[in-house]
Amino acid sequence: MCAGSTLIIRESCESAGTRPSRDKMLLRAVAATRFAGTLRPGARRPPRLLRAQSSRASARPGEENIKPLDGIKVLDLTRVLAGPFASMILGDLGAEIIKVERPGYGQTGPMSQSPGYDSIASAVSGMMHITGPEDGEPVRPGVAMTDLATGLYTHGAIMAALLWRAKTGRGLHIDCNLLSSQVACLTHIAANYLNAGKEAKRWGTAHESIVPYQGFKTQDGYLIVAAGNNKQFARVCKVLNLSHLSDDPKYKTNTLRVQNRKELLQILSQRFSEKRTSEWLGKFEGTGVPCGPINNIQQVFSDAQVAHNDLIMKMEHPTAGKVVIPGPAVRFSDFKINKPTPPPLTGQHTAQVLREMLGYKDDDIEQLLKAGTVCQNKQPLILSGVAASQSQAQRRTRAQGDTPREGCQSVARHPQQGSNPRPTPQQAPAKPTAPLHKIMTVFH
Amino acid sequence: MCAGSTLIIRESCESAGTRPSRDKMLLRAVAATRFAGTLRPGARRPPRLLRAQSSRASARPGEENIKPLDGIKVLDLTRVLAGPFASMILGDLGAEIIKVERPGYGQTGPMSQSPGYDSIASAVSGMMHITGPEDGEPVRPGVAMTDLATGLYTHGAIMAALLWRAKTGRGLHIDCNLLSSQVACLTHIAANYLNAGKEAKRWGTAHESIVPYQGFKTQDGYLIVAAGNNKQFARVCKVLNLSHLSDDPKYKTNTLRVQNRKELLQILSQRFSEKRTSEWLGKFEGTGVPCGPINNIQQVFSDAQVAHNDLIMKMEHPTAGKVVIPGPAVRFSDFKINKPTPPPLTGQHTAQVLREMLGYKDDDIEQLLKAGTVCQNKQPLILSGVAASQSQAQRRTRAQGDTPREGCQSVARHPQQGSNPRPTPQQAPAKPTAPLHKIMTVFH
Repeated sequence: MCAGSTLIIRESCESAGTRPSRDKMLLRAVAATRFAGTLRPGARRPPRLLRAQSSRASARPGEENIKPLDGIKVLDLTRVLAGPFASMILGDLGAEIIKVERPGYGQTGPMSQSPGYDSIASAVSGMMHITGPEDGEPVRPGVAMTDLATGLYTHGAIMAALLWRAKTGRGLHIDCNLLSSQVACLTHIAANYLNAGKEAKRWGTAHESIVPYQGFKTQDGYLIVAAGNNKQFARVCKVLNLSHLSDDPKYKTNTLRVQNRKELLQILSQRFSEKRTSEWLGKFEGTGVPCGPINNIQQVFSDAQVAHNDLIMKMEHPTAGKVVIPGPAVRFSDFKINKPTPPPLTGQHTAQVLREMLGYKDDDIEQLLKAGTVCQNKQPLILSGVAASQSQAQRRTRAQGDTPREGCQSVARHPQQGSNPRPTPQQAPAKPTAPLHKIMTVFH
Repeated sequence: MCAGSTLIIRESCESAGTRPSRDKMLLRAVAATRFAGTLRPGARRPPRLLRAQSSRASARPGEENIKPLDGIKVLDLTRVLAGPFASMILGDLGAEIIKVERPGYGQTGPMSQSPGYDSIASAVSGMMHITGPEDGEPVRPGVAMTDLATGLYTHGAIMAALLWRAKTGRGLHIDCNLLSSQVACLTHIAANYLNAGKEAKRWGTAHESIVPYQGFKTQDGYLIVAAGNNKQFARVCKVLNLSHLSDDPKYKTNTLRVQNRKELLQILSQRFSEKRTSEWLGKFEGTGVPCGPINNIQQVFSDAQVAHNDLIMKMEHPTAGKVVIPGPAVRFSDFKINKPTPPPLTGQHTAQVLREMLGYKDDDIEQLLKAGTVCQNKQPLILSGVAASQSQAQRRTRAQGDTPREGCQSVARHPQQGSNPRPTPQQAPAKPTAPLHKIMTVFH
């Protein structure tokens, strides 16, 4: 792969503002820096943060932390959530993300509308139909899983395209959409219908054909117990001090337990409600019965395993202060996903992108800024470099300004983060000598 | 990438039977051929099918349909669902999947237990806590989204490792797990807690901070309406013949609508219940208000867009007959994900793998089969080649036998499928001249 190769990710949906207007756009050079959630209409608040990742800190040849996508530039024209989620992961893997957005979010913007597309796709794809209480109404997964699955498909597709380009020397057009992503995830639900005409239904937390295999209310929360076989069922009964149940002819096999599901669950549910979740977890420990608590978010992030897995990532934001976001899901043996940077301010890197990537001279950049063709964020930290000359020392100063040093320091304290110094601009990837072979990804 | 490079995907969980026992294993050479769902304990039935994809049909150099992972071999030691889902996608992209499984499923096997891990991870990660009716109990997404998200992360991670290997010449160890994958997908839910201490709750189909933005019961089903701004709210009111609502001071802004959510939704819900879903969809057409039906699975696969997106994929199974499964989510401009093959029978390709990939002689293979060290499926179609000599014509016959020709023909009728002939064994990827650089992926 040649350095400087460019991937383009954009949405095809006109209503989501696919193509940045030519007369006014905000450029932000970021590395997989993401917003998630929605701005509440009518409320001015900082966007909620997903995660930010700078790849530039590890792009230098000869350094240890070589990443798979070092030298790859992604031009990201998408908005929440599938596209940016893909970009974020690509950034984690070393790509440099250049994000171009139109201004003027507010109530008509993508932050208020786009999550709707997840909702709609979740409904149309059948996902909502199969999610919900057994005797209740359909619900939507609590996070935008359709968007996220699409982003996950997309990041893989883009890397497949990079591998394909390495084989063929040609660029590629990738077509991703929420509906296809969610339908492809229907797996056995789809196969059951397509092959046996079997319509799906909602099961709450339960399993259609294994009993007991579901959540139970405890004195203070919920516990999932998944007894996949008779031996495990016997162990569940023993833990519950209801050993007679596993000898009862009505519950001896799973088939019988499914047949007599209602009355068995009534007995079990009653018993589970008598103790606290932690007490039950203690009693199940070592029995080999798969079980776990239904954690709320506070409990999730208090979990030792979650911390151990580096899922709590801290960084410094230039205006919001210290921010914490979930870390990357995958760990690799020979390189680290480190040096995260926070989402940039809108227009934070406009001048830098114009100068360093597009070759504009400072005079021209100032003209564009004056004319309002582009916007540069007004943070003094950022603007300090705009009118400066291009001497090496000054460029270094600007580069330091572009990504707050506090952020790097904060991240360097993260237990499993490396501490490679940020490269100076002259170490940025060289312009490609070979023609660009673009990989274009479109979201519908 | 050298042809013949090997990826290894395995589970680290002992209880899921990570390492195939040495004294008896079943080998199946397949290309992203998948099972999904669970075998019902006590019931003998064919496993539900996900999707199968043979890459070998398009691996020949010089042919048009070059795929990104042509020449890549995946040794898949995983079971349902995250690992196989990743393998399936890698197979779609051209990889050849070699799957090794232990026999003896039944009620204690992974088909009954493994989905539990999705359940447990879904609970422990907080996913269940945020999914469910607003005033009801937590539920689990209707498909194993935690497993699937992990598979999606994994297929990307594996391709990242291939790109990294192309840069460095070194193999890599990849660490994937359900908990990290789901927690990383918590996005703004996580950020809200980590930065603002805000606990998440369940919202049914609704949006926390936009009203109306949820599912409504109609005369015959459900409709999702997502009015992201005042203009769209006014249009919703017009469609409902309730225009006075958008002028009502109580509902003029989204902030007010959120404040007066309960009484507004009561009025809207009443009105939506008066007509059928299709009538409402007709009335909303052209208004620009995002909306869609909550489809059941029959409706999903009757949807013209779903068919257009090639999401209904047909193939012939050697024992189950014609099978239909959901197609791949992503489309690429310059190569097609075609020539799917059904999940192989257990042991269908044992002899072929031993002979063609591991270099065993037929005499040795027969010894291993007799001793029960390996098993070959007893389908005459498959066994026909086991004792045959290695003349070219006979090898071709066996190759045809390994993947039923009916399957290829059936798939060739699929509108957007190509029709490349299946290569004969002598066209299989050459043994690598360079040392293997393994990429190992482990699931927890």
